Amino acid sequence: MTLRFGMVGGGPDAFIGAVHRMAAALDGRFELVAGAFASTAERSERTGSELGLDRARVYGSWERMAEAEAGLPPGERIDVVSIVTPNHLHHPVAKAFLEAGFHVVCDKPLATSVADAEELCRLAAERDRVFCVTHNYTGYPMVKEARERVRGGALGAVRKVVVEYSQGWLATLLEAEGQKQAEWRADPARAGASSVLGDIGSHAHDLLRYVTGLEVEALLADLGTVVEGRVPDDDAVVLLRLTGGVRGLLIASQVATGERNGLRLAVYGSEGGLTWRQERPGELRLTEPDGTRRTLFAGTAGLSERAAAHTRLPAGHPEGFIEAFANLYRNVAATVTARDQPEAAPSSGPFDDDFPTVADGARGVHFIHAAVRSENEGSWVDARYDPPACSA
Amino acid sequence: MTLRFGMVGGGPDAFIGAVHRMAAALDGRFELVAGAFASTAERSERTGSELGLDRARVYGSWERMAEAEAGLPPGERIDVVSIVTPNHLHHPVAKAFLEAGFHVVCDKPLATSVADAEELCRLAAERDRVFCVTHNYTGYPMVKEARERVRGGALGAVRKVVVEYSQGWLATLLEAEGQKQAEWRADPARAGASSVLGDIGSHAHDLLRYVTGLEVEALLADLGTVVEGRVPDDDAVVLLRLTGGVRGLLIASQVATGERNGLRLAVYGSEGGLTWRQERPGELRLTEPDGTRRTLFAGTAGLSERAAAHTRLPAGHPEGFIEAFANLYRNVAATVTARDQPEAAPSSGPFDDDFPTVADGARGVHFIHAAVRSENEGSWVDARYDPPACSA
Amino acid sequence: MTLRFGMVGGGPDAFIGAVHRMAAALDGRFELVAGAFASTAERSERTGSELGLDRARVYGSWERMAEAEAGLPPGERIDVVSIVTPNHLHHPVAKAFLEAGFHVVCDKPLATSVADAEELCRLAAERDRVFCVTHNYTGYPMVKEARERVRGGALGAVRKVVVEYSQGWLATLLEAEGQKQAEWRADPARAGASSVLGDIGSHAHDLLRYVTGLEVEALLADLGTVVEGRVPDDDAVVLLRLTGGVRGLLIASQVATGERNGLRLAVYGSEGGLTWRQERPGELRLTEPDGTRRTLFAGTAGLSERAAAHTRLPAGHPEGFIEAFANLYRNVAATVTARDQPEAAPSSGPFDDDFPTVADGARGVHFIHAAVRSENEGSWVDARYDPPACSA
Amino acid sequence: MTLRFGMVGGGPDAFIGAVHRMAAALDGRFELVAGAFASTAERSERTGSELGLDRARVYGSWERMAEAEAGLPPGERIDVVSIVTPNHLHHPVAKAFLEAGFHVVCDKPLATSVADAEELCRLAAERDRVFCVTHNYTGYPMVKEARERVRGGALGAVRKVVVEYSQGWLATLLEAEGQKQAEWRADPARAGASSVLGDIGSHAHDLLRYVTGLEVEALLADLGTVVEGRVPDDDAVVLLRLTGGVRGLLIASQVATGERNGLRLAVYGSEGGLTWRQERPGELRLTEPDGTRRTLFAGTAGLSERAAAHTRLPAGHPEGFIEAFANLYRNVAATVTARDQPEAAPSSGPFDDDFPTVADGARGVHFIHAAVRSENEGSWVDARYDPPACSA
Repeated sequence: MTLRFGMVGGGPDAFIGAVHRMAAALDGRFELVAGAFASTAERSERTGSELGLDRARVYGSWERMAEAEAGLPPGERIDVVSIVTPNHLHHPVAKAFLEAGFHVVCDKPLATSVADAEELCRLAAERDRVFCVTHNYTGYPMVKEARERVRGGALGAVRKVVVEYSQGWLATLLEAEGQKQAEWRADPARAGASSVLGDIGSHAHDLLRYVTGLEVEALLADLGTVVEGRVPDDDAVVLLRLTGGVRGLLIASQVATGERNGLRLAVYGSEGGLTWRQERPGELRLTEPDGTRRTLFAGTAGLSERAAAHTRLPAGHPEGFIEAFANLYRNVAATVTARDQPEAAPSSGPFDDDFPTVADGARGVHFIHAAVRSENEGSWVDARYDPPACSA
Repeated sequence: MTLRFGMVGGGPDAFIGAVHRMAAALDGRFELVAGAFASTAERSERTGSELGLDRARVYGSWERMAEAEAGLPPGERIDVVSIVTPNHLHHPVAKAFLEAGFHVVCDKPLATSVADAEELCRLAAERDRVFCVTHNYTGYPMVKEARERVRGGALGAVRKVVVEYSQGWLATLLEAEGQKQAEWRADPARAGASSVLGDIGSHAHDLLRYVTGLEVEALLADLGTVVEGRVPDDDAVVLLRLTGGVRGLLIASQVATGERNGLRLAVYGSEGGLTWRQERPGELRLTEPDGTRRTLFAGTAGLSERAAAHTRLPAGHPEGFIEAFANLYRNVAATVTARDQPEAAPSSGPFDDDFPTVADGARGVHFIHAAVRSENEGSWVDARYDPPACSA
Repeated sequence: MTLRFGMVGGGPDAFIGAVHRMAAALDGRFELVAGAFASTAERSERTGSELGLDRARVYGSWERMAEAEAGLPPGERIDVVSIVTPNHLHHPVAKAFLEAGFHVVCDKPLATSVADAEELCRLAAERDRVFCVTHNYTGYPMVKEARERVRGGALGAVRKVVVEYSQGWLATLLEAEGQKQAEWRADPARAGASSVLGDIGSHAHDLLRYVTGLEVEALLADLGTVVEGRVPDDDAVVLLRLTGGVRGLLIASQVATGERNGLRLAVYGSEGGLTWRQERPGELRLTEPDGTRRTLFAGTAGLSERAAAHTRLPAGHPEGFIEAFANLYRNVAATVTARDQPEAAPSSGPFDDDFPTVADGARGVHFIHAAVRSENEGSWVDARYDPPACSA
Repeated sequence: MTLRFGMVGGGPDAFIGAVHRMAAALDGRFELVAGAFASTAERSERTGSELGLDRARVYGSWERMAEAEAGLPPGERIDVVSIVTPNHLHHPVAKAFLEAGFHVVCDKPLATSVADAEELCRLAAERDRVFCVTHNYTGYPMVKEARERVRGGALGAVRKVVVEYSQGWLATLLEAEGQKQAEWRADPARAGASSVLGDIGSHAHDLLRYVTGLEVEALLADLGTVVEGRVPDDDAVVLLRLTGGVRGLLIASQVATGERNGLRLAVYGSEGGLTWRQERPGELRLTEPDGTRRTLFAGTAGLSERAAAHTRLPAGHPEGFIEAFANLYRNVAATVTARDQPEAAPSSGPFDDDFPTVADGARGVHFIHAAVRSENEGSWVDARYDPPACSA
């Protein structure tokens, strides 16, 4: 029942690798057995040793890892690879591991070009591999509650959606100070066409889609670089028209000085509204037509089955970022197990497929590129898109 | 030291008339002595009687009131007229009273055309009359504190401004149900070119200007009508470029179901940010570069002189909408008294001129029309504007 | 319809006098015509002059004022006196004005001894005078909503009540620095047997009673002096048994460093709970059995008639301390007018008698003395009490 | 570097067992290898099987487990036992495993009598075993920040401490409905002398001690049973005198209808105050003498080393209950490893000993019994206490 996984990236200084490891560990469904943690063998080994891995399974390059793991016997080699590298490597690494027959968990944005994203879609389908893109904010139980309510019609017809993701950590020219995280994000070759949309705007876009089920049909983007000396963009506003003409707005900023990780979603319908804020993830605020506010809390009795299935603790016992991330991993585990070890798998649950897929990832990449096109043209652009047939 | 004032509008069903009367009464600087409260003599008299006014000073039309009051001796006639009618009457009424020699307090938007607004500017200057446009949200002490901090450089260079004004009261087709407030706002002939911007967007625009000192130089508007059957717009997003290229965003919605009166302003600078929310008006949140939040409260010791001068109570004793509105009236009283009765006036204070003027009103009207133009053209438009020389 | 009132106390440096004047002015039901504003004629005159009063009606002592006003003709003399002096003067001043035939609005605590309080009760009844004690926090609309819900059974049987009033302004030995407000409160001869209970604990006690309708039947007090060098107490916890054995707790502190004016009430019943906080007075939080929170806002449609009748503005337009205080004055005006000028009074409203009376004041004084007795005895004491027949 | 641990209790229906397992798994320092999960072999095996344990290491009784594990070779048997049974079993199980030579992690309260608690103290010392009592709320990083600030003098001299733990889950007679968690807590034989203090009051007591470093020297308790038909108490207020005469107050209620898990701590000193709330665990509010509020957030740069050492994620990425619990496990792991495998242990960290010990547990048990004594005597009681020499 426990799956073996390996990691590409996630070496020293890489915050997100540790998050993936804790998320995978939380529910006891994954065991980390291999990794190519850094771009030098020495740094990869240092991390492997700290994690107590067998040295033979710690690799100096992801190419070597893909090849070596594929050569191990089925009961020994990894089941899943987690890719936590800078953006430009997502595509080549994912491609290699798909081709080697592994399931994939990959950080977002999926790729730095639409063509690359689509190639991964097609490969995942051809090889019939599970592919999760870690738009992790949809893992929160109260986001799932929002989804059930919005899609279930509790707000009536959806009329207006505002999603904002404001951070302040790039309010100074951090990339000039040797900060690793800032450095690669500031380099278009590694971060992609829009740094701010790739880094956080794509999360906002996915969150909006996940909750409402609406797709972006047209957009007008206002992308800008606020900090002097910076190369890529760091601030974005995108006007949206969603399925059926619903009005939308997406705000993404890395220069909102003093904001920590301010992702919020507001959905307004003909019969009510709701707001969710990532920094208080266990709360979902409903705004009722008469101006009353109702706040729902994770773990309480009246929530949807989907929310309950992704909650580990009773009400009042806060769950956070790692738990939400772990919900992705747990669902990937259930899906992979059901596919690869159907005899060992407990009867699959109704929400096993509840994680963002390679198709979601491709939509995110397309959104970024449509926004860049709009910014360049200074006008509204058609943003309708369907990725090529993708597997989950 | 007490000024006499009269009111045009503010009869039965008119919420804002009562607000003006309470705001004027709060500090004991005004006495209501005359009025043309409604469009019929009978309804005007009913209100006049309820207010205990001398029947001779209750008029059946504003034209009659302007003429009759002008004919009274100086110690008896009104000093100031307050205009609280639907939008389309602001201009003709204000013009008549200016020409009759009275100071004016007028609701926003100042007029329904830029030409009308400019005519009032010129008239106020020619006749040397005090003219206050009740963009009342700038009357809050913590808005004033925000202004002092932003303009005083506490946030460093301003980089990004977001102002949002979200209400839900028009989420249904209220104008079809005979609700008076909704009815005239839904009629472009009475509400002006953009209902949502005239009604609330102009407040947001003024608040942004008041705090930051920046003007809108270019804009792209996305105006829309969300509720089926409605004639004017009810939802707006306006992308802004402010003085010096600062990035801005203005959101105004009357269909944000369940929101009450959700005006908020966020300003981000190179060295910090701040957020103010109208529904918790005595708080000002500072977001510091390290992610710490500092909340300042009205009435505490460390605030600016400007904020302190507009606070009546110690910290922890909430002041609200009426008190903020009364700050406009009190400053108008001080300014009018200093001009008309310099011998009676206490030494004028440093903040006597702190109220929105006819020039601010004209800028608001121009902003609305620039936004409508952008919406019609589907593109960014130049929004630079200086109203003709105006008096305060 | 407008009543004439005079004021005793409220001179320079006296914050609460200005509050009473604004509260009385807000609704246009009172005109200030007389006053003995300070203990010296010079200081009284200074205030009278600033307020634009007729010099003949500005008195150098309250004794002189009671006598002189009583000698004026009915259409000229004051209808009501407002007493805003330090605590020890409440009784003699109120007694004098009752005996002279005036209605009274008096600050709390009503008196510094139970005997004095009872004398005022009897006098008010004998002379049939309206007597309001300004336990002003019960004037807030959402406190009234709480009352309607609790007494109407919305929470089921009440089981537990916690009322807390925490301030920090006396966290230093302010009385040694010449601060007037701190000075007299620190002097038992002027403040009464318990400074902290007299100043704020009595408000908490009245709020609890007003909302729940329960009386204190037994109590155990833990009173203490925290700041070195201070004479009276500044911190109190009082365990309560209320009518029917309901468990209660009252906390009052003036040394909760950094707290502004932190009055809050929590009531828990068998079917729900509610919490109100004075610093966000327009919100009432309901805690539902399933852990959901429902927040009601002043001015919204679904509130009780009592709350609505004490609200001036639509939802989202904050009202505050002055408005709540003005609700007391307005109801006093309605009650006085109905009694003295029944022909002039509009049909009296259902909530005209909704203000704290001399009987409420007497209960507050008794509570303070019962708590002091418990502190001295170190044990639970019987606190049951009914004041002598009192008029409202 | 990975420790093996076994669990006593934590079978079907037992929420807290799963929490311990997730907390132990999060940082990869523990591997679950054995368990006596329930009081019947069948139910124990069901849980063991679900957890994928070797059947040979799943025991039908804790007595058998202690004996069998002790008989395994050192490299195979468990290092640590986690005890997550109802309260009355904590002592016998812990005693057995200490005597068998194992380190212990044990739920609170440590025991149901002071004598039992002291026996565990002495045993842990004699056998030199690590013994952690899971007063888990002290594991939160912002609680640790509060400790550093309070003990470091940032608030000046501490004057007043209020700790409140309000829940509503027992507002109905849940124990009569077959709810397991409610059932044993309602049985004094299993829950101990005070159910409400044992279940939640002891957490509040430990939190107060952890942050302030002050001990309870005297107390007066008001314990009561609110829900009709219930046997043990469900509501408590305890007046406290802390070291040096500092005034304190502890509130614990399970009948605060609608409250989820409302643990909060407020500490007021001569130079400032602070408040922490468990349901928003990543925030620490400082109340400054001028009435300004400063909110610190977990993960920001300016926090203490102790807080930083117990934080896994950057600011704005919420951590919760499991992460706080995991901090206890991680520190236990570090301490055990340093003792048992000094050669394998990384250089021990400065905060390795930061977990509640058997001595803290004994103090908690003594506090409960002192409160019960005070309730019985109806008066203040001496509560000074030092447990017998205990190991950590």
